[in-house]
Amino acid sequence: MRVLGVDPGLTRCGLGVVESGTAQKLNMVAVGVIETDPNANLELRLLGLETELIKWIQKYQPDVIAVERVFSQLNVRTAMATGQAAGVALLIAARLGIPVVMHTPSEVKAAVTGSGRADKKQVANMVVKLLALKEVPKPVDSTDALALAICHHWRGSGNARIAAALVKEKARVKKLTPKIKVGRK
Amino acid sequence: MRVLGVDPGLTRCGLGVVESGTAQKLNMVAVGVIETDPNANLELRLLGLETELIKWIQKYQPDVIAVERVFSQLNVRTAMATGQAAGVALLIAARLGIPVVMHTPSEVKAAVTGSGRADKKQVANMVVKLLALKEVPKPVDSTDALALAICHHWRGSGNARIAAALVKEKARVKKLTPKIKVGRK
Repeated sequence: MRVLGVDPGLTRCGLGVVESGTAQKLNMVAVGVIETDPNANLELRLLGLETELIKWIQKYQPDVIAVERVFSQLNVRTAMATGQAAGVALLIAARLGIPVVMHTPSEVKAAVTGSGRADKKQVANMVVKLLALKEVPKPVDSTDALALAICHHWRGSGNARIAAALVKEKARVKKLTPKIKVGRK
Repeated sequence: MRVLGVDPGLTRCGLGVVESGTAQKLNMVAVGVIETDPNANLELRLLGLETELIKWIQKYQPDVIAVERVFSQLNVRTAMATGQAAGVALLIAARLGIPVVMHTPSEVKAAVTGSGRADKKQVANMVVKLLALKEVPKPVDSTDALALAICHHWRGSGNARIAAALVKEKARVKKLTPKIKVGRK
């Protein structure tokens, strides 16, 4: 199975293609980003993203597309742009008849590192390890896209593993809460 | 000139086509809504919206598409869906090479009623009057789309008029502010 992970964004959209080989081993097929000019009109940026994304899909022929589900972000404008970029990916998948799924950042982090609250560096290190890469792919958006594809590979057989990691994580956060309060005085 | 106004939404997307006739008179060519099933997967809803929107464009051949610019809404999920619906309209316009512009709700209200803070009923009544309709088109999303198309027709010759209405409106709001404070105690 070949999964295309999409870390949606309008300025930079991360893409990573991961394939399952023998004995559950995962291989990186491709990694990269699509960038659109922040000074261009919104409609042209969306069209640019669509055009490039279709090229990726035609080239790498994924069986499934996994898109990061974005809930909220620092500001409304960024959230809107990210949501629209995700919308373009979903729309293309539906149009081409390719199954598409969404995973939250917590699900991705939990799947790859075992913790839903892992930082970007931990995720990147695990991506390198799991795909047996020589170095961390750059820019970081593309690493996130690879993590998303890995997450999707494991959701099939690893739903329980992710759920367990999330439950463990919630328990850990609860335990931490009083400590944090003490720290704040 | 023929303008297609799009009041973006995923559950209901309002559409209105308005054409300029002789002596600056405006005529309604078509009005309606595209609805997608709230229980369907997001990617299928986006595809449904795209398919229907393309049919409208092919049928009515607008010279310009005007889309409402949405900044914020009551909840993130709704804002995201509206933003993605707007994104689909923008993307199609860019792909088909049709000029597309965005107008804010205040700009539309100011253009149609003279006040950037007019309510839905005032806007609907003015749309009926300006397009010489026999009754208010239903549902209200379609009226908003007609208002958007009217707004765009007038932005060419009427930018000054809108700007003046907005300035007047701001002045009015400022004047009102102390009153409101008193009322609240």
